[in-house]
Amino acid sequence: MRRVYLDNNATTRTDPEVVAKMLPFFSEEFGNASSSHGFGVEVSGAVREARRSVQALLGAAHDHEIVFTSGGTESDNAAILAGLAAREGRDEIVTTAVEHPAILSLVEHLQKTRGVSVHLIGVDARGRIDLDAFRAALGPKTAIVSAMWANNETGTLFPVEELARLAHEAGALFHTDAVQAVGKIPIDLKSTQIDFLSLSGHKLHGPKGIGALYVRKGTKFAPFLRGGHQERARRGGTENTPGIIGLGAAAELARMRLHEDAVHIAALRDRLEAGVTQRIGQCQVSGDVDNRLVNTSNIAFSDIEGEAVLTHLDRAGIAASTGSACTAGSTEPSHVLRAMNVPEEALHGAIRFSLSRENTIEEIDDVLETLPGIVAKLREIARASRHTEAQLLTN
Amino acid sequence: MRRVYLDNNATTRTDPEVVAKMLPFFSEEFGNASSSHGFGVEVSGAVREARRSVQALLGAAHDHEIVFTSGGTESDNAAILAGLAAREGRDEIVTTAVEHPAILSLVEHLQKTRGVSVHLIGVDARGRIDLDAFRAALGPKTAIVSAMWANNETGTLFPVEELARLAHEAGALFHTDAVQAVGKIPIDLKSTQIDFLSLSGHKLHGPKGIGALYVRKGTKFAPFLRGGHQERARRGGTENTPGIIGLGAAAELARMRLHEDAVHIAALRDRLEAGVTQRIGQCQVSGDVDNRLVNTSNIAFSDIEGEAVLTHLDRAGIAASTGSACTAGSTEPSHVLRAMNVPEEALHGAIRFSLSRENTIEEIDDVLETLPGIVAKLREIARASRHTEAQLLTN
Repeated sequence: MRRVYLDNNATTRTDPEVVAKMLPFFSEEFGNASSSHGFGVEVSGAVREARRSVQALLGAAHDHEIVFTSGGTESDNAAILAGLAAREGRDEIVTTAVEHPAILSLVEHLQKTRGVSVHLIGVDARGRIDLDAFRAALGPKTAIVSAMWANNETGTLFPVEELARLAHEAGALFHTDAVQAVGKIPIDLKSTQIDFLSLSGHKLHGPKGIGALYVRKGTKFAPFLRGGHQERARRGGTENTPGIIGLGAAAELARMRLHEDAVHIAALRDRLEAGVTQRIGQCQVSGDVDNRLVNTSNIAFSDIEGEAVLTHLDRAGIAASTGSACTAGSTEPSHVLRAMNVPEEALHGAIRFSLSRENTIEEIDDVLETLPGIVAKLREIARASRHTEAQLLTN
Repeated sequence: MRRVYLDNNATTRTDPEVVAKMLPFFSEEFGNASSSHGFGVEVSGAVREARRSVQALLGAAHDHEIVFTSGGTESDNAAILAGLAAREGRDEIVTTAVEHPAILSLVEHLQKTRGVSVHLIGVDARGRIDLDAFRAALGPKTAIVSAMWANNETGTLFPVEELARLAHEAGALFHTDAVQAVGKIPIDLKSTQIDFLSLSGHKLHGPKGIGALYVRKGTKFAPFLRGGHQERARRGGTENTPGIIGLGAAAELARMRLHEDAVHIAALRDRLEAGVTQRIGQCQVSGDVDNRLVNTSNIAFSDIEGEAVLTHLDRAGIAASTGSACTAGSTEPSHVLRAMNVPEEALHGAIRFSLSRENTIEEIDDVLETLPGIVAKLREIARASRHTEAQLLTN
């Protein structure tokens, strides 16, 4: 069966080039990167190269600003906790209502267990941050500000450089969850005031189980995982060398192909959105359409359930999602779309199509062939069921 | 050049069979295990199988008692913090002086920042836990007890089943860092009172960057990584599917080969120790020689520096270590040997040889050919330098 994968914000296929680079580090160059003998030394050199590849992709000033972690969630958790610990006497966190659960569930926990005050800044109907509310929330008690660079559900970009500047003006540290942004937009950290940045390997055609946290030189940092002195005593635990090498290779590929991929993906996205809105009525693209990732298209279809659409698409070999895979299967509507005040009749019918450089025009055309029939059928069922309900009520 | 790897307690070679099982999960079955569509479903089935393989190796009663993590350090940190949080009103930790840094540096941090009281139980000259001191330390304020199953430096086994029973009698939870024990000794958790157990993939011929935490059914648990609802809401973050599949495959291999490997490795270890003690004077095997892992041989050579021995061995293509790779390069003598009161003249000359099923008789004989010359040469240099020093002092 033909299979079309349009759920790249959940995870991407590891590029076979990346896998090829990782392979020797399982059973040949398998030493512990912290060992002093030859088996360790040959590995630690490769780790250094990978660190530089990540540095280059982020435009970081120093390679030692990159700390390898197990992924985006660990990086997010580590940054928030380090930020809180670094600013003694300050116990407030400013973040946004549309962050990933790796931020929201942690700050909620800190609020409950440590008495930390959390300010959740709202967004407008296009998902743009409320800058006035953001400015007003910052104060002498703000320890750390966390705002994602690109939203995982709509692709909307936050002006993180400006937010970082404002956070610093208030004496707070600034973290950005850039898990969806890294590898998709040009980033030059050395020209910003960002203190911490989270990224994840598997969102950019690297392997799962590896990520990184950028920690600006000079920023006070307390390790999240405590153990050995790996990563300059900033992250305990034996280095995941195949993962690190894979992330480095993925970063290198992403950097080389950034522009070319963006052009290709934007063309597919535009074809998808034009086709869908043309062929299917009562639907709308969510997010800041003028300022978002090129790969993410979140379309809300009125009067139907997104989960039902996904089931039918899945049967036809097409993978998409209603939102984050971290909440897949949940019947709760997306907290992101709710924060954007997407109307109730469209809130449950949102589908996220997230593309990658591996998608083709043919795949998009497949979706455009398949989707209208599914939506029409589901709307018909919904109408019939409403009709029956109305009849039952009048009888 | 011939290369002999005798540092398997630092890390093992990932078994090529394990790598072969992981490979499809990078670029073919690459879906997010939490996604509802076909790409996710095919992966989640494989994750379930891997979980059952780990369950079988541990003799756990239920597969959902296994939580996949990024490795031993994360598992250790998560268990200690969950144990502290689970026993409200109790704020003491009982552990031992010879634990891995993943325990010791965390409890030290908790002592400093949260006012937790930490009892470090000592060991005797053979590395055996002081049971009287252990019993005396337990009390109505003990929240969690953590004692490693097998020591990473000497291989000495602690009677963790008895320690767990005593911890429960005091109303405390019990955790064991079994990173070195799992896959080397038979384990049947369902017949014990152990609440938490940490293991790491790369110590048993699985990949780096993956591990697991056993959490006994019914034990109150708070997640360490907060984010999505993965791992039954006990560990946020996209599942590292290739890593999980690799750990499952390694667990399966270890379980099938446990006895056969132990016999093979014990024979090599005995040959090594008999050869070394026969050919080299003034050296002694550290640890509880009657009750230790078959693969670990820690030998203290008087009057020389272990680091110098390692450098010469490395030049000859032989990899060993002075202790944990997490502290490699450090000139501080091992905290484990110090706790055992190894005499000062031998403390700096300790070498840990850690074997695996992949080692051969020829490799051991290589070491027995090479090592006596190195030790003799270094002792001669040490004698000459002491002689010069004495002359300078008398002049």
